[in-house]
Amino acid sequence: MEKISVKVSSGGFVKEFRNNVDFCVGTGRMGLALHREYFEQLKFVQEEIGFKYIRGHGLFCDDMGIYHEYEDEVGNVRAEYNFTYLDRVFDGYLSLGIKPFLELGFMPEKMASGEQTVFYWKGNVTPPKDYDKWCGMVKALLTHLIERYGRDDVISWPVEVWNEPNLPGFWKDADMAEYFNLFKRTFYAVKEVDERFRVGGPAVCGGSDEIWIKAFLDFCSAEKIPLDFITRHHYTCEIDHDDGHYRYPSLTEPQHGRDNLRTTRDIADSFDEFHGIEIHITEFNTSWDPRNVIHDTNKNAAYIAHQLSWLGDLNESYSYWTFGDVFEEQGIPFSQFYGGFGLAAAGCVPKPTFYTFKFYKQLKGGKCVFRSDDMVIVEKDGGYRGVIWNMNTKREGRDKAFEITLPCEGECSLITHTVDEKSCNPLKIWHDIGEPKTPTARQLDLLKAAAVPAVASDRVKSGGGTVTVNIPVSEYGVVYFEANPVGGESDRGYDYDWIKNN
Amino acid sequence: MEKISVKVSSGGFVKEFRNNVDFCVGTGRMGLALHREYFEQLKFVQEEIGFKYIRGHGLFCDDMGIYHEYEDEVGNVRAEYNFTYLDRVFDGYLSLGIKPFLELGFMPEKMASGEQTVFYWKGNVTPPKDYDKWCGMVKALLTHLIERYGRDDVISWPVEVWNEPNLPGFWKDADMAEYFNLFKRTFYAVKEVDERFRVGGPAVCGGSDEIWIKAFLDFCSAEKIPLDFITRHHYTCEIDHDDGHYRYPSLTEPQHGRDNLRTTRDIADSFDEFHGIEIHITEFNTSWDPRNVIHDTNKNAAYIAHQLSWLGDLNESYSYWTFGDVFEEQGIPFSQFYGGFGLAAAGCVPKPTFYTFKFYKQLKGGKCVFRSDDMVIVEKDGGYRGVIWNMNTKREGRDKAFEITLPCEGECSLITHTVDEKSCNPLKIWHDIGEPKTPTARQLDLLKAAAVPAVASDRVKSGGGTVTVNIPVSEYGVVYFEANPVGGESDRGYDYDWIKNN
Amino acid sequence: MEKISVKVSSGGFVKEFRNNVDFCVGTGRMGLALHREYFEQLKFVQEEIGFKYIRGHGLFCDDMGIYHEYEDEVGNVRAEYNFTYLDRVFDGYLSLGIKPFLELGFMPEKMASGEQTVFYWKGNVTPPKDYDKWCGMVKALLTHLIERYGRDDVISWPVEVWNEPNLPGFWKDADMAEYFNLFKRTFYAVKEVDERFRVGGPAVCGGSDEIWIKAFLDFCSAEKIPLDFITRHHYTCEIDHDDGHYRYPSLTEPQHGRDNLRTTRDIADSFDEFHGIEIHITEFNTSWDPRNVIHDTNKNAAYIAHQLSWLGDLNESYSYWTFGDVFEEQGIPFSQFYGGFGLAAAGCVPKPTFYTFKFYKQLKGGKCVFRSDDMVIVEKDGGYRGVIWNMNTKREGRDKAFEITLPCEGECSLITHTVDEKSCNPLKIWHDIGEPKTPTARQLDLLKAAAVPAVASDRVKSGGGTVTVNIPVSEYGVVYFEANPVGGESDRGYDYDWIKNN
Amino acid sequence: MEKISVKVSSGGFVKEFRNNVDFCVGTGRMGLALHREYFEQLKFVQEEIGFKYIRGHGLFCDDMGIYHEYEDEVGNVRAEYNFTYLDRVFDGYLSLGIKPFLELGFMPEKMASGEQTVFYWKGNVTPPKDYDKWCGMVKALLTHLIERYGRDDVISWPVEVWNEPNLPGFWKDADMAEYFNLFKRTFYAVKEVDERFRVGGPAVCGGSDEIWIKAFLDFCSAEKIPLDFITRHHYTCEIDHDDGHYRYPSLTEPQHGRDNLRTTRDIADSFDEFHGIEIHITEFNTSWDPRNVIHDTNKNAAYIAHQLSWLGDLNESYSYWTFGDVFEEQGIPFSQFYGGFGLAAAGCVPKPTFYTFKFYKQLKGGKCVFRSDDMVIVEKDGGYRGVIWNMNTKREGRDKAFEITLPCEGECSLITHTVDEKSCNPLKIWHDIGEPKTPTARQLDLLKAAAVPAVASDRVKSGGGTVTVNIPVSEYGVVYFEANPVGGESDRGYDYDWIKNN
Repeated sequence: MEKISVKVSSGGFVKEFRNNVDFCVGTGRMGLALHREYFEQLKFVQEEIGFKYIRGHGLFCDDMGIYHEYEDEVGNVRAEYNFTYLDRVFDGYLSLGIKPFLELGFMPEKMASGEQTVFYWKGNVTPPKDYDKWCGMVKALLTHLIERYGRDDVISWPVEVWNEPNLPGFWKDADMAEYFNLFKRTFYAVKEVDERFRVGGPAVCGGSDEIWIKAFLDFCSAEKIPLDFITRHHYTCEIDHDDGHYRYPSLTEPQHGRDNLRTTRDIADSFDEFHGIEIHITEFNTSWDPRNVIHDTNKNAAYIAHQLSWLGDLNESYSYWTFGDVFEEQGIPFSQFYGGFGLAAAGCVPKPTFYTFKFYKQLKGGKCVFRSDDMVIVEKDGGYRGVIWNMNTKREGRDKAFEITLPCEGECSLITHTVDEKSCNPLKIWHDIGEPKTPTARQLDLLKAAAVPAVASDRVKSGGGTVTVNIPVSEYGVVYFEANPVGGESDRGYDYDWIKNN
Repeated sequence: MEKISVKVSSGGFVKEFRNNVDFCVGTGRMGLALHREYFEQLKFVQEEIGFKYIRGHGLFCDDMGIYHEYEDEVGNVRAEYNFTYLDRVFDGYLSLGIKPFLELGFMPEKMASGEQTVFYWKGNVTPPKDYDKWCGMVKALLTHLIERYGRDDVISWPVEVWNEPNLPGFWKDADMAEYFNLFKRTFYAVKEVDERFRVGGPAVCGGSDEIWIKAFLDFCSAEKIPLDFITRHHYTCEIDHDDGHYRYPSLTEPQHGRDNLRTTRDIADSFDEFHGIEIHITEFNTSWDPRNVIHDTNKNAAYIAHQLSWLGDLNESYSYWTFGDVFEEQGIPFSQFYGGFGLAAAGCVPKPTFYTFKFYKQLKGGKCVFRSDDMVIVEKDGGYRGVIWNMNTKREGRDKAFEITLPCEGECSLITHTVDEKSCNPLKIWHDIGEPKTPTARQLDLLKAAAVPAVASDRVKSGGGTVTVNIPVSEYGVVYFEANPVGGESDRGYDYDWIKNN
Repeated sequence: MEKISVKVSSGGFVKEFRNNVDFCVGTGRMGLALHREYFEQLKFVQEEIGFKYIRGHGLFCDDMGIYHEYEDEVGNVRAEYNFTYLDRVFDGYLSLGIKPFLELGFMPEKMASGEQTVFYWKGNVTPPKDYDKWCGMVKALLTHLIERYGRDDVISWPVEVWNEPNLPGFWKDADMAEYFNLFKRTFYAVKEVDERFRVGGPAVCGGSDEIWIKAFLDFCSAEKIPLDFITRHHYTCEIDHDDGHYRYPSLTEPQHGRDNLRTTRDIADSFDEFHGIEIHITEFNTSWDPRNVIHDTNKNAAYIAHQLSWLGDLNESYSYWTFGDVFEEQGIPFSQFYGGFGLAAAGCVPKPTFYTFKFYKQLKGGKCVFRSDDMVIVEKDGGYRGVIWNMNTKREGRDKAFEITLPCEGECSLITHTVDEKSCNPLKIWHDIGEPKTPTARQLDLLKAAAVPAVASDRVKSGGGTVTVNIPVSEYGVVYFEANPVGGESDRGYDYDWIKNN
Repeated sequence: MEKISVKVSSGGFVKEFRNNVDFCVGTGRMGLALHREYFEQLKFVQEEIGFKYIRGHGLFCDDMGIYHEYEDEVGNVRAEYNFTYLDRVFDGYLSLGIKPFLELGFMPEKMASGEQTVFYWKGNVTPPKDYDKWCGMVKALLTHLIERYGRDDVISWPVEVWNEPNLPGFWKDADMAEYFNLFKRTFYAVKEVDERFRVGGPAVCGGSDEIWIKAFLDFCSAEKIPLDFITRHHYTCEIDHDDGHYRYPSLTEPQHGRDNLRTTRDIADSFDEFHGIEIHITEFNTSWDPRNVIHDTNKNAAYIAHQLSWLGDLNESYSYWTFGDVFEEQGIPFSQFYGGFGLAAAGCVPKPTFYTFKFYKQLKGGKCVFRSDDMVIVEKDGGYRGVIWNMNTKREGRDKAFEITLPCEGECSLITHTVDEKSCNPLKIWHDIGEPKTPTARQLDLLKAAAVPAVASDRVKSGGGTVTVNIPVSEYGVVYFEANPVGGESDRGYDYDWIKNN
C-alpha cells in the first residue's frame, strides 16, 4: 500500500482554493421538472447538499406550453403566453431554495424556421422565423418572472443564450453568424427589461474554444456588446464501446481538460474588455452521454473529487450535469442504474459522486491550509476538515495510506466518512441482487441502506503541538474527515475505558 | 480466527423455534409517555421493529391524575376519575400500532394505606386502604377503555396485577398474603367487566420462583381462581462496581438464567390445572439497573441475540425492558448515554441491541431450518434468512468465521448487515467526540450516521444443489444475512463485470 | 322560500340505494400521473374521499415509453418493453390506496397502422398493424404487473378495451368490425395470462347504445365470448356557446340521461347470456369538455349530487371524469380555474363537487331509510346521515327549507356541513381577487380557506319518539347532515347555558 | 342593528399604534414543555401566529431536575447541574422559532429554606437558604445556555426575577425586603456572566403597583441598580361564582385596567433614572384562573381584540397567558374545554381568541391609518387591512354594521374573515355533540372544521377616488378584512358574470 505523508503547518501559508461546489447544478429538460420523482430527487439533493442555481434545457419547448398564437377579431395573429407550467416548476425550485440559471432555448414549433429537432424529446433547434417574436417572448418571460417573483430576486438569475450552438445537432448547421445574431438580439431584449440582468454565452462544448470562443469575443468586441460572462462546457470521457442500451467509458487524463480550460481563460484575457471576465462552466461531468455506465461508479466519484479541487482556479463556477436521473435525452431509462448523470438515482438512491459533492460542501467557509492532487484541507470552526481521494483513470488496484499531521493541543477527535467500492457502492449491491430494473420498495431500502459512507472515529493524543492521524483510502475511494480538539469531560463516574476493556 | 461450518440440508428436519421477539416491550412509567421525546423514540422503534404490546409501571400513579375524591352536596365522599392523560397516552400508543399490556399499579395517594414509595418518581407501593375503592377504580378504568376503544379490542389487552410484590421496595413488606388478596379481588373485578379479559400475575423478579410462584399457584388452586397466565421477570447481570452516576456490569452465564426459567415452567406444570399455562416474561434484560453501562454496548446486543434464540422455548413471551431511554427510576439521566435500558437513546439514536431485535423481526414467519448457540436460520419467501452472533460474557478477543452451506440452484445473492464494535457502535463515536451530555443537532446526525449496520453483498455460484457462503462475525458482533436465489437477467447490453474490471 | 317536509318512520321500509360513489374515478392521461401536481391532487382526493379504482387513457402512448423494437444480432426485429414509468405510476397509485381500472389504449407509434391522433397530446387512434404484436404487448404488460404487484391483487383490476371506438376521433373511422376484432383478440390475450381477469367493453359514449351496445352484444353472443361486463359513458351537458379558451354550458334535464341509461340496461337484459350483466359507466360528468366552466361551480355540485342518488340503480359503477385538474386533452390550462373536470383544482383547491363526493362517502355502509329527488338519508352507527341538494338546470333563485322528522329519544345533536354559493364557492373568491392565473401561495391559502363547508350545529329535544330538524338549502346548495342522539353528561359543575346567556 | 360609519382619508394623519402582538406569549410550567401535546399546540400556534418569546414558571422546579448536590471524596457537598431536560425544552422552542423569556424560579427543594409550595404541581416558593448557591445556579444556567446556543443569541433573552412576589402564595410571606435582596443578588449574578443581559422585575400582579412598583424603583434607585425593564401582570376579570371544577366570569370594564396600567407608567416616569423605561406586561388575559370558562368563548376573543389595540400605548409588550391548554396549576384538566388559558385547546383546536392574535399579526408592518374602540386599520402592500370587533362586557345582543370608506381607484377586492358565535365557535359544537371529555379523532376533526373563520369576498367599484365597503360584525364578533385594488384581467374568453347569472 502506498503511503503518503502530509504536514499542515500551524499558522502557515494559506492555499488558494475557490470552492464553488454548490453554485450551480444541471438538470434534465424543464418539462421533466413537473415530475414527482424529479422533485423528490431534487429535494433530496437540496437537503443533503444544497445548490444555489439550477440550469437545463427546454424552457421554451412545447411541453412547457409557453408560446401560443391566435387570431383576434380582425384577423391579426397575436402572441399569447401560458406560464402555468413554468410557474409550477419555478415555484418548486424556489421552495427548495434553488434558483434558475436561465438557459433560453429551444424554439417553440410555432416560432421555428425549420423542423430539425434534437433528442428523444424533440427540441426544435432552428432559428426563429421572426426575431421580433423571439424577443417578444423573451421579454414577456422576464416581465412575468419579475411580476411573480419580485424584481430584486429575478435580476440575480443569470441568463444564457441557447446551448452548444457550435454543434449542428443543437443549432441548425452550427451557423455561427446566425447564433451571433441570436445572441445580440437576445442580449438587448433582456437588458430592455432590466439592465441589471447578467447575460452570457456562447455555451459551447469543450474543444471548440479556439474557434468559437475567440470568434464570439471578437463579435462582442466589434459590436461593443458589454458581455457579462462567458459560458462553456467541460467533459472528460470518451466512449470505449457501446452495447445495447449502454455506453462504456474511457476516461481522459485530467491534465487534458485542464489545458483545454486554460485556453478559454487565455483567450478571454487576451481581450482588454474581457480580461478577467467570469467564465461559467455551465455543464461538466466525466461523460456527456446519459447511458455511460461510468456515472454510477466510485471511480466517477474519485475523478470528480479531483476536478472539484481545481475547477475554481480559472472559472467562476462549474455545474455538474446533472443532479438526478430523471432524464430523457436518449429515451426513457430502462433500468434503475443506466449510466445516468444523476448524483441520485431513482428512488433517491445517492450514487458515490453524490458524496463527493456533499463532502466538498462541508469545506465551504473554511480557510484552505493544504491542497494537492490527493486532497484539500481547510481550517474551520476551530478544527480541520478535508476531502481525500484515490483517483486514477485506469484500474490499477492501488490502495493508499495517508498520514496527516495537523496542529493540535490536547486530544483530537478524528471522524472519517468513507465512500469506496466496499463501503458505499450501491451499484454493486444492485448487481448482486440481480439488477432489478425497477426495484421493489424493500430492494430500494436495501440500496439506500448500502449507499451511505462508513463512519469511523478515533481519539488521538497530540504531542509537541501536533497530532498525526492515519487515513487509508482504497482505490477510487473518497474520504471526508474532521479533526477537532476534544472538549468537555466525562460525566461523574463515567469510565469508557473500563467498558472498552471489560 | 475460529472457523465454524454449518450445513443446512434440503428438505431436512425443521427445528422448533418460537419467535415472539415482537410480542411485547417495556417502557418507563406511564406519565413519561406524555413526553414528546418518548413518543419519538417509540415511533422510531415501532417503524423499524414494531411490537404488539407495551408494558410498564405507573398507570395509577398521581402524575396520570386518574383518581380523585370530592364531597357531594350532602357531604359524602365520592370517587371521580380523570382519564384525560390516560386517553392521550393510549391514543398515542394505538396510533403507533402498539397496544397496552396493562399492569395495574401503583397506588394513588388518596387511596393508599401508607406513604412508602419507590423510585425517584415516588410510586406509592402500599396496599389500598379500601379494596372496594380499588376495585371500583379498576372497573371504571376498564369500562372507560371499552367505551373509548371498543370492547373487541380492549379485551385483547392482557392484565397483570402489580409489579414485583416479592420485593419489599415494590410492595410494602413484600407481604405475600396481602398480595394474594389484592390479586384475587382484582382478578374478579376485571372479570366482572368482561369475563374474556385475561388476567395474570404475580410479576415476580427472578430467583424467587420456588417460593412465590409456587405459593401463588397454591393460592390460586386453593381458591379456584382460573388464572389466565403467569408472569415473571428475567435479568442476567450483576453489578461489578459503581462510580458516580454509573454502575458497571458482570454478566452471568446464560445457563444460569435458563435453569431459573426452567424452574418456573416445572412448578407450573406440576399443577394439573396450570399445566402448560402461558408464562409471560414481562421484563427481561441483561441488567435491571438503568445506570448500568452494559445496555449501550455491542456486548449487550450479542448477549440478547442469544437470549432471543431460546426464550420462546418455555415461555409465551419475553418483554425487553425497555424500548427507549426516557426513564426516571433513578432520576433524570445526566447524559446522552447513561446505561439506560433503551433500544434507542435520546434523539432516536439506535443502540446495537436495537438491531438485534430488528434482525429477529426479519425472521418472523420463516420456517426454522437451523438453530444453535451461534445462530438461527429460517427459510422464508424462497430464500434463507439468519441471525448470527458472537457472544461471550467476558472479553476474550475472539473473532469467528462462519461457513454456511445452504440448498440453492443457480446463483445466490448474499446480503449481510453487520453490527459490531467497528461498524455500528455509537457509544464509541460519542466517546471519541468527547462524550457530549446533550449532543448538538450536528453531533446527533453523526451518531445516527454511525449507528447503522454495515451492509455488504456477494453473488455466489452454487454447485451440486448447494451454495456455501462465508460470514465473519467479530467479537460481540451480530450479523443478519439473507441468501436468495438471483432472478432476472441484465438489461440489454448491461455488463457489470466490464465495469468492475475497468 | 319553498318548504319541504319529510318524515322518516321508525323501523319503516328500507329504500334501495346502491351507493358506489367511491368505486372508480377518472384521470387525465397516464403520462400526467408522473407529475407532482397530479400526485398531490390525487393524494388529497384519496385522503379526503378515497376511491378504489382509477381509470384513464394513454397507458400505451409513447410518453409512457412502454413499447420498443430493436434488431437482434441476426437482423430480426424484436419487441422490447420498458416499464420504468408504468411502475412509477402504479407504485404511486397503490401507495395512495387506489388501483388501476385498466383501459388498454391507445396505440404506440411503432405498432400503429396509421398516423391519426387525438387530443393535444396526440394519442394514436389507429388499429395495430400486427395484432400479434398488440396481443404480445398486452400479455407482457399483465405478466409484468403480476410479477411486480402479485397475482392475487392484479387479477382484481378490471380490463377495458380501448375508449369510445364509436367516435371516429377515438378509433379510426369508428370502424365497428375492426373494434370487435380488437376486442376479441384482446379478450383472449388477457385470459391467456389469467382466466380470472375480468374484461369488458365497448366503452362507448352515450347516445350510441342502440347501435353499438346492441351490435357488440350480438357479436359477443355469436362468437361466444364470455364477456365480463359492459362499459359506456354518460354526459349530460351541451355547449351553449364558446369564447376564447372557454366553453359555456347548457345542462340537460336528468331524465334524459336516465332514459338513455335505461336503454343500455334493457338491451343487455334482452340477451339470455348477458341478462343482469354488470354495467360500468367508466366516465360521467355534466360536460365532456375540459374547458366547460360548469365544472367549477356549485351548480355542478348540486347536479352531480342528484346523479349520485340514482346512478347505482341500473349500473354497477359510475366513474366521475376526473379527480383532478392536471389535464391536457385541449392543451395546457391557462389559468387556475379553466372549466377542468377535476374535483380539485391546482394547488389542491377543492371545488364544490368535491364535497358532493365526500358527503356521499359518509353514507357508505348505512341503511337507506329515505330517498327522493332532493335527498338521501341513511341510518348508521345509531344515528342518521343524509345528503340534501337544491338542484335545477336553470337559475331560478329558489331557496328551500327542509323539515325532517326522524325517530329519536332524548336529545339529538344535529350537525350540518353546507356547500353553497355563499359558503363554499372558491370560484367567486378567485374572481373577486382578480382571477389570478397562477395564484401566489398566499392567494392559494385564501382560496383553500374559502373552499370549506360551513359547519353548524344544534341540539334539539325529541318528543313522542321523534325529533324534527330544520335544514335550509339555498339554490345550488348541497348539505350533509348528521343527527345523532346526544350521550354523556356535563363534567361536574360545567354549565354551558350559563355561558351562553351571560 | 347599530350602524357605524368610518372614513379613512387619503394621505391623511397616521395614527400611533404600537403592535407588539407577537412579542411574547405565556406557557404552563416548563416541565410540561416536555409533553408532546404541548409541543403540538405550540407548533400549531407558531405556524399560524408566530411569537418571538415565551415565558412561564418552573425553570428551576424539580421536575426539570437541574439542581443536584453530592458529596465528593473528601465529604464536601458540591453542586451538580443536569441540563438534560432544559436542553430538550429549549431545543424544542428554538426549533419552532421561539426564544425563552427567562423567568428565574421557583426554588429547587435542595436549595429551599422552607417547604411552602404553590399549585397542584408544588413549586417551592421559599427563598434560597444560601444565596451563593442560588447565584451559582443562575450563573451555571446562563453559562450553559451560552455554550449551547451561542452568546450572541442568548444575551437577547430577557431575564425576569421570580413571579408575583407580592402575593404570599408565590413568595413566602410576600416578603418585600427578601425579594429585593433576591433581585439584587440575581441581577448582579446575571450581569457577571454577561453585562449585556437585560434583567427586570418585580413581576407583580396588577393592583399592587402603587406599593410594590414604587418601592421596587425606590430600592433600585437607592441601590443604584441599573434596572433594564419593569414587569407586571394585567388581568381584567373577576369570578362571579364557582361550581364543581369550574369558575364563572364577571368581566371588568376595560377602562379600569387602563387606569391601573397608567399608574405603573406614571410611577416609573416619576423617577429620573427610570423615565421612559420599558414596561413588559409579562402576563395578561381576562381571567387569572385556568378554570374560568370565559377563555373558551367568543366574548373573550372580542374583549382581547380591544385590549390588543391599546396595550402597546404605554407598554413595550404584553404576553397573553397562555398559548395552549396543557396546564396543571389547578390540576389536570378533566375535559376538552375546561376554561383553560390556551389560544388552542387539546388536539390543536383553535379557540376564538386564537384568531384575534392571528388577525393582529396580519397588521404587523402596516402603517396605522385609523384606530378607535371598534377597530384598527393599517395600510400595507398597497391595500388596507383591519381588525374590527364587537365587544361589551355584558351580553346585550347588539349586532353592528360598519361602513368603511377607503381611498381607492378602480375596483376593490374585499375579503373578510369572520369569527363569531355563529361561524367559529367550537365550544358550541362541542356542547351540541354532548361535551365529550376527550373527543374521538372524528369528533376532533369536526371541532377543527368548525373552528375556522367564515371567509367572504366582494368586488366593489370605486368612485371619486374612494370605495365604501360594508362589514357586519355580530355581538362578540371579530372580523379581519383586507381591501386591495384588483389587478389583472380575465383570461381570453373567461366571463364570470355569465357563469354567475346562468
